[in-house]
Amino acid sequence: MTDATPRPMSRRFPVRLDLARGRVEMTHGGGGRAGAQLVEEIFFRHFGNAELAKAADQAQLSIMGGRIAVSTDCHVVSPLFFPGGDIGTLAVNGTVNDIAMAGARPRWLTAGFILEEGFPLADLDRIASSMAQAAAEAGVEIVTGDTKVVERGKADGVFITTSGIGVIPDGVFLGASRIAPGDAIIVSGSLGDHGMAILSRRENIDFDSPIESDCAPLNGLVEVMLAASADLHALRDPTRGGLSAVLNELAHDSGTGMVIDESAIPVSETVHAGCELLGLDPVNIANEGKLVAFCPTSESDRLVQVMRQHSRGFGAAVIGHVTATQPGLVRMRTKFGGERVVDWLNGEQLPRIC
Amino acid sequence: MTDATPRPMSRRFPVRLDLARGRVEMTHGGGGRAGAQLVEEIFFRHFGNAELAKAADQAQLSIMGGRIAVSTDCHVVSPLFFPGGDIGTLAVNGTVNDIAMAGARPRWLTAGFILEEGFPLADLDRIASSMAQAAAEAGVEIVTGDTKVVERGKADGVFITTSGIGVIPDGVFLGASRIAPGDAIIVSGSLGDHGMAILSRRENIDFDSPIESDCAPLNGLVEVMLAASADLHALRDPTRGGLSAVLNELAHDSGTGMVIDESAIPVSETVHAGCELLGLDPVNIANEGKLVAFCPTSESDRLVQVMRQHSRGFGAAVIGHVTATQPGLVRMRTKFGGERVVDWLNGEQLPRIC
Repeated sequence: MTDATPRPMSRRFPVRLDLARGRVEMTHGGGGRAGAQLVEEIFFRHFGNAELAKAADQAQLSIMGGRIAVSTDCHVVSPLFFPGGDIGTLAVNGTVNDIAMAGARPRWLTAGFILEEGFPLADLDRIASSMAQAAAEAGVEIVTGDTKVVERGKADGVFITTSGIGVIPDGVFLGASRIAPGDAIIVSGSLGDHGMAILSRRENIDFDSPIESDCAPLNGLVEVMLAASADLHALRDPTRGGLSAVLNELAHDSGTGMVIDESAIPVSETVHAGCELLGLDPVNIANEGKLVAFCPTSESDRLVQVMRQHSRGFGAAVIGHVTATQPGLVRMRTKFGGERVVDWLNGEQLPRIC
Repeated sequence: MTDATPRPMSRRFPVRLDLARGRVEMTHGGGGRAGAQLVEEIFFRHFGNAELAKAADQAQLSIMGGRIAVSTDCHVVSPLFFPGGDIGTLAVNGTVNDIAMAGARPRWLTAGFILEEGFPLADLDRIASSMAQAAAEAGVEIVTGDTKVVERGKADGVFITTSGIGVIPDGVFLGASRIAPGDAIIVSGSLGDHGMAILSRRENIDFDSPIESDCAPLNGLVEVMLAASADLHALRDPTRGGLSAVLNELAHDSGTGMVIDESAIPVSETVHAGCELLGLDPVNIANEGKLVAFCPTSESDRLVQVMRQHSRGFGAAVIGHVTATQPGLVRMRTKFGGERVVDWLNGEQLPRIC
């Protein structure tokens, strides 16, 4: 994965980092020459842009007046590399998507790295490369960052915290408070892929068909949805805690009830099989490239059609609706014709899924 | 330190967190009810503001057009609590100061927490309280955040990554590129206090007079400096790596040489004694409430006078000047009348100082 771009020789660092066999050392976090070299030869090389190259302690950016969306996410996923992505793709897409869920156009990211002493530089380089690729796909720039090193056994390889800034277009107002009885509940595609990809890797489960994380930027999909629908009410990405956490939060925050239809929820055969095997419910499993949307039922069919024409929304479906009754409660019509409450999980969730 | 504000009873969480004896559990990072409760009963309670209370995945903020400064800092300091502050005060002031060094007015912070399973909730509550106090003093709001939990032994209590956004006033352009031969080099006060406070705690050294971290917000000082000087060229806070790292970076980035005068560098008796004891040089030791400023020598006396009238700058002094000769090199006239190169540290620095 290491790209082959020739690295410029710096006057300050006569010997280059050994990206094949080198490891993170405590001195890389010490604020001296070694840390500057790590940042320059790994992060600047991959993330290169005019603002970052200034190597100041902060980025200086020009912005139009208006509203901005700001978000931050810590990433502690284990394992660091998984089918369909790694902690780097996750760190970029996770924050890009949180920004996009406000209807904002993500512009800039910051990245903070906490590295464990002894972490292979080759892995760090691969992760930085993934981040650069994900940032390019999402159309954002990583404009500033920080790197700290802790002793062996005081972290777990690498943790990445990304923050993002996006610009909210005039006239776009999305949020839980706009969700209203009569709204349709739409998901952009099949649920549970990210969580099941992590689990399959962690538990060494082999599925007949390979399962990959859905980790992807959603800002492109959100742009076409905003262009198509005059009355989108809210967007949320069902990451940690899955669909059930998101719907419970939004039902609580909007003071509405929600009813979803189990048979309408798109779930792949493989995820379904994995859930059966592990005793899990797809509605509780994390996604990293899916969104939940709320709009008046009258507009939902048109919106789903538009979403299906986008690569990140081709599996879009209406899965339920919002009610005035039983505010704060999420109910599901099961495949067997019954109804059950979809509660927020109380107990142990899947740890370190993102 | 735990404040006594009565906590509103939430319908969602029938039993409150036990802030006296409770500990961080894996479920607090699971995206379910437990995590929501932790965030609500600790972070929202201390950081409370209208934007945060929306509990969305991102903050939505209104901003005037112009330039903004954006910064991010990971905090892994050990020990978490030290004389004069804790990881919480550090996490707020560190990012506030990076923003202020661009001449910007810090407005908003984000906070990402990586918690180790088993970390005492009482400590987390105390840290959140420190952050709230520091944010209030600096006049910034913590508008959004994230919390993750990793297994016991996979982190070290708590790591905090803060990002900040500030607004750069029209006409303010600070940066390494503006540093020019003939500039005076000014520091805002005594050097080495933060690093020595951490070390004294870590190594259990008792000094005759107590030593406290200088951890403090510098945005107030920067405002009066900007108001006083029409021609401030650059500001930088000498944190990790100390004065020597900052001067070497700036000499390199500006293509100038720098000469400082050892006897002009303000260092407290206690820090001096600690440096003698530990074989350290104050110019290499981290500060968390000091800045280095560059302005034409013709304006430096006036600027120092203005700084000395501010509580964060009463120890301000001119310590050297910028030269056209020997670009990239920092030299020091020693107390003994000699001259030596102040190099960037290559080897082991003080680990986990911030």
